[in-house]
Amino acid sequence: MTRIRFHQSLGDLKDKLLVMAGMAEQAIQRAIEAYRERDLSICDLVLRGEVAINRLEREIDQMALDLLAMEQPMAIDLRFILAVIKINADLERVGDQAVNITERVRDLLGFATADLPIDIPRMANIAAAMVRKAIQSFIEGDVEMARSVLAMDDDVDRLNRQYFYSLATRIRENAGESPQSLNALVIVRNLERVGDHATNIAEDVIFWVQGDDVRHHISASVAGLQKIIPATSQDTESPDNTEPA
Amino acid sequence: MTRIRFHQSLGDLKDKLLVMAGMAEQAIQRAIEAYRERDLSICDLVLRGEVAINRLEREIDQMALDLLAMEQPMAIDLRFILAVIKINADLERVGDQAVNITERVRDLLGFATADLPIDIPRMANIAAAMVRKAIQSFIEGDVEMARSVLAMDDDVDRLNRQYFYSLATRIRENAGESPQSLNALVIVRNLERVGDHATNIAEDVIFWVQGDDVRHHISASVAGLQKIIPATSQDTESPDNTEPA
Repeated sequence: MTRIRFHQSLGDLKDKLLVMAGMAEQAIQRAIEAYRERDLSICDLVLRGEVAINRLEREIDQMALDLLAMEQPMAIDLRFILAVIKINADLERVGDQAVNITERVRDLLGFATADLPIDIPRMANIAAAMVRKAIQSFIEGDVEMARSVLAMDDDVDRLNRQYFYSLATRIRENAGESPQSLNALVIVRNLERVGDHATNIAEDVIFWVQGDDVRHHISASVAGLQKIIPATSQDTESPDNTEPA
Repeated sequence: MTRIRFHQSLGDLKDKLLVMAGMAEQAIQRAIEAYRERDLSICDLVLRGEVAINRLEREIDQMALDLLAMEQPMAIDLRFILAVIKINADLERVGDQAVNITERVRDLLGFATADLPIDIPRMANIAAAMVRKAIQSFIEGDVEMARSVLAMDDDVDRLNRQYFYSLATRIRENAGESPQSLNALVIVRNLERVGDHATNIAEDVIFWVQGDDVRHHISASVAGLQKIIPATSQDTESPDNTEPA
């Protein structure tokens, strides 16, 4: 394989990942539309889309593996291919979350509509935008944009906590509608996981562009914890040789 | 790097992954001990362990990347290194689930002990055993053992569904204890995710050993769906070119 042909293949790989990302984002949007409209036929669309997402995931993995096997990619290309493999897995799991949401919608259809003190479409819009922005940052190799995804995840986490307590309160005050509240609670957590997957993607982009592993550097809580716990007072089971070489 | 030295490095990589797996499994067991004993100091242990897990994850990723960059690994070695990268990510997320569980335990400590109609330690034991068995199948390159992990995940999924309905019923009948029930519900879902990560690991082992991508082949529901939906009636957004080349 010539180097030009190799770079064409990298381009093909990127294109396929973009298709995958579009399908994953659409799956989330459809799942939420199914929730809003209480529409079983949209749930079926999501399930059918999931089959296509799973097939494309396998195809992308195989392409990436072939490129690694046939060439000795240079450092930047190697990181790119590894980023594709990781992003691919996260996108497939975004699709899984969409399917999980439709399962809750199916259950909800057995109960009357409840007016719950939360805004699921709002949370879904943020989560879907995170996936879109994470992929856009990947296309453009834009580290600043990738970092903005990490900031959006704070919004999603805040909504997740807020909605948890709103629904917990609601359940106490209106136990008769607890099936509706419980299903909504699970959907909220599914959306929070979509945000986590978008965050993973953004971190992979930063890793790909900068060769810098940002994971666990950006989390304020862990950063705080690392200050509290000096490296010398590590937990007993932590190996002595975990310092980067 | 000589080939002997290269294979020594692969061995080192495997050893580090085993340490990582032990830490992840221990994190889950400690989180559940914290739940059972209502013990904040065990929650702190889990948080400190998470810092060590995150550091080791970075180190393993870097080792794998270096091996890919320095050598042109043969097909089986390439698949092994890719399996390590994926397994590593799943183990780190098992650690995240342990931390999530401790957050629920902290919240639970604000309420009286409730006698709930579910057995969280039982579910945790299965989930932890799945992680252990998945890693053991990796060490031994044992596909049959990896497949047994996929079967265990069915048990975890069944418990997840069963406990969801038990807790939903409980909440309706005893709204006063709904904070306890809700926190238990979230812990149950965290354990279900641990089972999913172990399943991912088992699938990676099968892929590594056989070069066969089992993902999405083993799921009865998806297999059933693929029968229902012929390839010719794909969803509109599915690309025309998703058939493996």
